[in-house]
Amino acid sequence: MSEKLKVAIIGSTGYGGIELIRLLASHPLVEITSVISSSSAGMPIAEWFPHLTDIQTALLDDVDPQAIKAKADLVFTATPAGVAAKLAPQLLDAGLKVIDLSGDYRLQDTALYEKWYKKTPADEHYLKQALYALPEINGDKAQGASFISNPGCFVTSALLGLVPAVKAGWIDPASIIIDAKSGVSGAGRGASLGTHYSELNENFKAYKVNQHQHVPEIEMVLSEAAGHEVVTTFTPHLVPMTRGIMSTMYGAVKGEHTTADFIELYKQFYEGRQFVRVRKEGVMPMTKEVWGSNYCDLGFNLDARTGRITIVSVIDNLVKGASGQAIQNLNLMMGWDEGLGLQFVPVYP
Amino acid sequence: MSEKLKVAIIGSTGYGGIELIRLLASHPLVEITSVISSSSAGMPIAEWFPHLTDIQTALLDDVDPQAIKAKADLVFTATPAGVAAKLAPQLLDAGLKVIDLSGDYRLQDTALYEKWYKKTPADEHYLKQALYALPEINGDKAQGASFISNPGCFVTSALLGLVPAVKAGWIDPASIIIDAKSGVSGAGRGASLGTHYSELNENFKAYKVNQHQHVPEIEMVLSEAAGHEVVTTFTPHLVPMTRGIMSTMYGAVKGEHTTADFIELYKQFYEGRQFVRVRKEGVMPMTKEVWGSNYCDLGFNLDARTGRITIVSVIDNLVKGASGQAIQNLNLMMGWDEGLGLQFVPVYP
Amino acid sequence: MSEKLKVAIIGSTGYGGIELIRLLASHPLVEITSVISSSSAGMPIAEWFPHLTDIQTALLDDVDPQAIKAKADLVFTATPAGVAAKLAPQLLDAGLKVIDLSGDYRLQDTALYEKWYKKTPADEHYLKQALYALPEINGDKAQGASFISNPGCFVTSALLGLVPAVKAGWIDPASIIIDAKSGVSGAGRGASLGTHYSELNENFKAYKVNQHQHVPEIEMVLSEAAGHEVVTTFTPHLVPMTRGIMSTMYGAVKGEHTTADFIELYKQFYEGRQFVRVRKEGVMPMTKEVWGSNYCDLGFNLDARTGRITIVSVIDNLVKGASGQAIQNLNLMMGWDEGLGLQFVPVYP
Amino acid sequence: MSEKLKVAIIGSTGYGGIELIRLLASHPLVEITSVISSSSAGMPIAEWFPHLTDIQTALLDDVDPQAIKAKADLVFTATPAGVAAKLAPQLLDAGLKVIDLSGDYRLQDTALYEKWYKKTPADEHYLKQALYALPEINGDKAQGASFISNPGCFVTSALLGLVPAVKAGWIDPASIIIDAKSGVSGAGRGASLGTHYSELNENFKAYKVNQHQHVPEIEMVLSEAAGHEVVTTFTPHLVPMTRGIMSTMYGAVKGEHTTADFIELYKQFYEGRQFVRVRKEGVMPMTKEVWGSNYCDLGFNLDARTGRITIVSVIDNLVKGASGQAIQNLNLMMGWDEGLGLQFVPVYP
Repeated sequence: MSEKLKVAIIGSTGYGGIELIRLLASHPLVEITSVISSSSAGMPIAEWFPHLTDIQTALLDDVDPQAIKAKADLVFTATPAGVAAKLAPQLLDAGLKVIDLSGDYRLQDTALYEKWYKKTPADEHYLKQALYALPEINGDKAQGASFISNPGCFVTSALLGLVPAVKAGWIDPASIIIDAKSGVSGAGRGASLGTHYSELNENFKAYKVNQHQHVPEIEMVLSEAAGHEVVTTFTPHLVPMTRGIMSTMYGAVKGEHTTADFIELYKQFYEGRQFVRVRKEGVMPMTKEVWGSNYCDLGFNLDARTGRITIVSVIDNLVKGASGQAIQNLNLMMGWDEGLGLQFVPVYP
Repeated sequence: MSEKLKVAIIGSTGYGGIELIRLLASHPLVEITSVISSSSAGMPIAEWFPHLTDIQTALLDDVDPQAIKAKADLVFTATPAGVAAKLAPQLLDAGLKVIDLSGDYRLQDTALYEKWYKKTPADEHYLKQALYALPEINGDKAQGASFISNPGCFVTSALLGLVPAVKAGWIDPASIIIDAKSGVSGAGRGASLGTHYSELNENFKAYKVNQHQHVPEIEMVLSEAAGHEVVTTFTPHLVPMTRGIMSTMYGAVKGEHTTADFIELYKQFYEGRQFVRVRKEGVMPMTKEVWGSNYCDLGFNLDARTGRITIVSVIDNLVKGASGQAIQNLNLMMGWDEGLGLQFVPVYP
Repeated sequence: MSEKLKVAIIGSTGYGGIELIRLLASHPLVEITSVISSSSAGMPIAEWFPHLTDIQTALLDDVDPQAIKAKADLVFTATPAGVAAKLAPQLLDAGLKVIDLSGDYRLQDTALYEKWYKKTPADEHYLKQALYALPEINGDKAQGASFISNPGCFVTSALLGLVPAVKAGWIDPASIIIDAKSGVSGAGRGASLGTHYSELNENFKAYKVNQHQHVPEIEMVLSEAAGHEVVTTFTPHLVPMTRGIMSTMYGAVKGEHTTADFIELYKQFYEGRQFVRVRKEGVMPMTKEVWGSNYCDLGFNLDARTGRITIVSVIDNLVKGASGQAIQNLNLMMGWDEGLGLQFVPVYP
Repeated sequence: MSEKLKVAIIGSTGYGGIELIRLLASHPLVEITSVISSSSAGMPIAEWFPHLTDIQTALLDDVDPQAIKAKADLVFTATPAGVAAKLAPQLLDAGLKVIDLSGDYRLQDTALYEKWYKKTPADEHYLKQALYALPEINGDKAQGASFISNPGCFVTSALLGLVPAVKAGWIDPASIIIDAKSGVSGAGRGASLGTHYSELNENFKAYKVNQHQHVPEIEMVLSEAAGHEVVTTFTPHLVPMTRGIMSTMYGAVKGEHTTADFIELYKQFYEGRQFVRVRKEGVMPMTKEVWGSNYCDLGFNLDARTGRITIVSVIDNLVKGASGQAIQNLNLMMGWDEGLGLQFVPVYP
């Protein structure tokens, strides 16, 4: 076999980082040559994550673009918002390819970034180089790219459920409401009251209502699909579980269509894409049916009484919503089959 | 103290029944004189529910209207749909007052009942005698009633969040979407794949999309509040937790209003009602904040960008959504303070 | 009714503190006149705990012994270890009665405290004034006390299951092994990796094996019961749930006894005590059967093959393991019925 | 690559069966040619398990030994106790190799089987052909076997933690106590009160105390390791989680040893075995650190005060405790590397 692609992971002590490590361990054409964490450099990663005992024995490296370049060809940046904005330019300048899992390079409009993220935006020079890539929507552009911005978790679940109908003109974009529910791992590994077990267990809550930073990213893609500017209602909720996102979405149907028509529309739209599965009429997907895998499963119910369609979309937020999709993007960048190293059966139960 | 009201509970081995037992144990004017279960008559209830050891030592009685009448003045029927339809007439004929927690006497339109419940409706003669009573909406009619139909759990959470705005004409009834999330106890104690731990833990699912039997009940009350017929979109979901319902509701705002205006409208509407609590602007209630209590907590966010209001309503499905509200209705029937025996602090964490 | 006892709660923003608030809200002879938190003085407590909205509207007071004395007769100190060691002397000197829920006054041997707690012990002058009171074991001494040290949560569950058999000489004290399992609320409200939802959910772990600070407290009481020094094996585990402790305990049986004999021994030992419930042969208690209540439930199985008895003891760690027991101790101090204000039915399911 | 081994799975609609399907999907030398369920023959398996949509599209076959033989060379029987006792002889007679995941062929003593399982034992003729194989203990005998009996889940976790010390004579076998905790999936997919979400969530319970059918299996192997008959104390508990077993084990230490000595003993015992990982001193493994993987992780703490060692052993009950170990046994039967197709990184968080 030809030599493997050498990759480094910045943010290896976060959930996005260790999920990259888990998934890439099975990738036939990739080798992890550096696991990096600014806060824990010099420590064995298994001190932080004993589940990696005997599996990933490397010491954590510090963030040093030249040193990374000496070890790797491509870097995944799985860092909190605001960090990649500063790091990616250094990595790109060092000649590394970059796939960024944070939100720092998703919005080309820096004013929007500042408004929703409340942080300093990335330098426009580098921002323009970033390709925002959602494989099933615009993944055909990824091949040969050297800098990819990976979509947000809520965004992925919402857009895969909405774009085909919006593009087809079957739902009124202005009517769209996205009611999303996420497992707690989406909040990362930082300890706070908001991630405290006793506060979240046996509890269900809404947060950042109409104010989540994924709103402009959803609207950016929906507007492009609709051909005009779209604003949308988005409510994230926290579910007492670790992994999984469900987006329950509502739209006013335009024209005469049935649930079966929608199912057919989506099957055609996603024909040939191995990670989107459309349920048959009468069945809705559950988050556990994609747990640990890169699938996005979709279900549909059109209510003739109200003229509205209900679309349910589920993903694993750490896989299709983050690290799995980043690897899917890597595969597309490299011109490989998009499913390489990602064909896991969901873990059930 | 004057003699206590003697009550019997049919369905004592279900979750609604044991919650009545838990709550009534603290009621100063009520005494449980018979706990009844057709399936387990003759057994001590603590065999079924060891948490009642030393607390409720009675043997379970069989369902016998005359025998019940000899022991009690009022009966709670906490039975599955279809059972109270047959039982209530016998109990009423025996001279007992009845508070029914099932769905059998909520819809005056028997065709609607048949369509949504897929069961034989109750006899219209008795159906007409039933007062559908949601205390904060029409509880003023309850005093002196002898047959009360207690609202559904989803219905209670939805209507307390919607009726004031619909009555005020502040939201377009046709635009209402109700995205509801419930803990698993709402499905009762029956064992099935749908209540199996390994299937529900670390899972989130939608069910009966646009087909839940609470739809016509919600529409019945909303239509009355709006003054014209309303159809609505309703999606129930199952959350991996035992208790709690959140309804996240969306409506297009009519007229010029702010979030603060909505908060003020609801505060005025519920003035003097001890079990509805309105959160201040910027704060949304969580299900755990009402856990084990009879509260319904409400939060509001109006998004000027979309012209839509997001209303969040939380209850404990077994208390305000069932047994607590039934006791609140009992208090109103008897002319007592509606909070008698119900003033529990929510259990947190 | 005579005037109520005025009490203050230091540590009102911790789980022990809010559980005192929840439980005392139903106590007929007690009034909370001050809720105190050094870190959040001046804020309404409902900002920290919205479930107390409309229920506890007081602002948090600062820790000031003279100001407390002006408002209250007795103080509960529900603070982390090390804090009450410094606070209690000031409160006692100000003429207040004190019930301390921390570990600071449980061990009369200051060297033991230093070894296991790794903190500076309390002043011996005050330490000697503290009465360590486990109501069912030595609660007869509590009446009239002015300074009570409330037992630890693991300790309570273990001792109520072991002391009768040790006192009777039916098990060999040297053979005792205590395998304990606790819900996460036992770790308090502080945010850390150790209380992070995604780390604990769907996980089970042992911690502080043979090194938990409750070991010397258990041994102190067991030694007294045995009449000679006892050392014991104790393993705490963390269960992915919020409330509840089970101690599964093993001992070599001395003499000829059956499971039925043990059950009878314990029933006699706890005769007249309303909060200990002994299960019949063949049935073991579960933590949920005491959830939210002050009960300690016990079950027994003697294995003739091995000559060992297995004793299972369950409590709610925040009630019988902390705040409920503190109120039980208050009742005993005051000469009231020990169950006053504590007779809640466990919340099930 | 040479032709793959063709395998069939009986019990494909149970948790053991679908876990075999998940794991074998990544096995490079195995092909599933028939998924079998007596109760659901003719249905697509994805009707039962939608997470297999597009992955396993075969219809479920009926149980017909001749038809199976036409499709496969080896059968996994993942059926409830009592079923394989009848099935395996037919499969063996049809010329199929068999790996049985049930308890039917583990105990060579049929009287013991009847006593603990309360079912009719397997025919002794076939029983004698079964090789009970726990890879790390006696896996060297598996190569070339045609009928393997796979160990129980609790048994695997207990024995991997105990056998090295018992064989070395470092702990007194008579003193061993096994306190085990299991996730709910161990109870299978059957719906009952015992697997009902609302009954198990936020609950912890002991069951079958001293009466679990894994007791004689543990004693069978321990007795062989000790060289004399051993009886032991075993308490299984149910944890509110889906997967994972922890066995916390206690033994009186014989001779002068330290925690470090035990760690070294076990490292040597398991040298060259890829699925047992020994934690360093001061660290105990958690169940989540092996989640979804075939690892068994071990931790040790010797308490000089009591002279007892505490041994903690964790596995994923559905992988190392069932289907993963069955595949490991398959690998050994076939003379392949025991880790083939099983080298998954545990899923964390």
